[in-house]
Amino acid sequence: MYINNSHISVTNLSRISVEGGDVLHVLKSTDSQYKDFKEAYFSIIKSGYTKAWKRHLLMTMNLVVPVGKVQFSFYNDDKELIQNTIIGESLYSLITVPPGIWFGFRGLSGSDSYILNIADSLHDQNEVERQPLSFLKFPPKPK
Amino acid sequence: MYINNSHISVTNLSRISVEGGDVLHVLKSTDSQYKDFKEAYFSIIKSGYTKAWKRHLLMTMNLVVPVGKVQFSFYNDDKELIQNTIIGESLYSLITVPPGIWFGFRGLSGSDSYILNIADSLHDQNEVERQPLSFLKFPPKPK
Repeated sequence: MYINNSHISVTNLSRISVEGGDVLHVLKSTDSQYKDFKEAYFSIIKSGYTKAWKRHLLMTMNLVVPVGKVQFSFYNDDKELIQNTIIGESLYSLITVPPGIWFGFRGLSGSDSYILNIADSLHDQNEVERQPLSFLKFPPKPK
Repeated sequence: MYINNSHISVTNLSRISVEGGDVLHVLKSTDSQYKDFKEAYFSIIKSGYTKAWKRHLLMTMNLVVPVGKVQFSFYNDDKELIQNTIIGESLYSLITVPPGIWFGFRGLSGSDSYILNIADSLHDQNEVERQPLSFLKFPPKPK
């Protein structure tokens, strides 16, 4: 199976000021990052917790954090750190992650952070590899 | 143009308990509510604010409230109240709204509530009709 191990893209998203509550862009089918829609779900990450490591074999993830602040770290097959970034409500962005990349994330907000994943494949345990936190170094916060 | 003015469905969604932060289901392409993916976006509704009234001519909305608590009210073309319901993080559900229905919503949480819409058409001002809050009665909270 071919594992796409190329670019992780991080794109700033628009937050539109609206009386009564803002509107936050996420993803359109016409965006270059969009491949297909199969499933959307939220993952919560509690303050100070780290979830790592996981790798999808087929899924491209589109990740946004509308609430809170999350550090995401990504390693390639050669166990090289290829991306280490923070996104959240005040750094409101979309991270697009092709399959084949190890990822972990940590909740940096004082309360729960919410991650929305819009995925191009359905959740399937056979498509996910998992390793314990000790498998790779979770790096310090980026400067 | 045919306006589908039939059922609004409200479906309980799963919240899966996970160490470090729960996982919240939203929508799969295999769900009966799913039609197509064209755009996803968040609307925030501030505490005590009401956004009303709006009607999509083409869009089917799939609405979830992962954070906060929101009252949604829906009227048909005959200005009859057809649905008045509360969803939110402790009443975690999906509301699917076909086109042709007037809707309004109010933030019932003490802080910002977040509404995710997964829509089967792109945002387009020509596809949306708007009326002021006085156009229809925003009903009291359902019992």
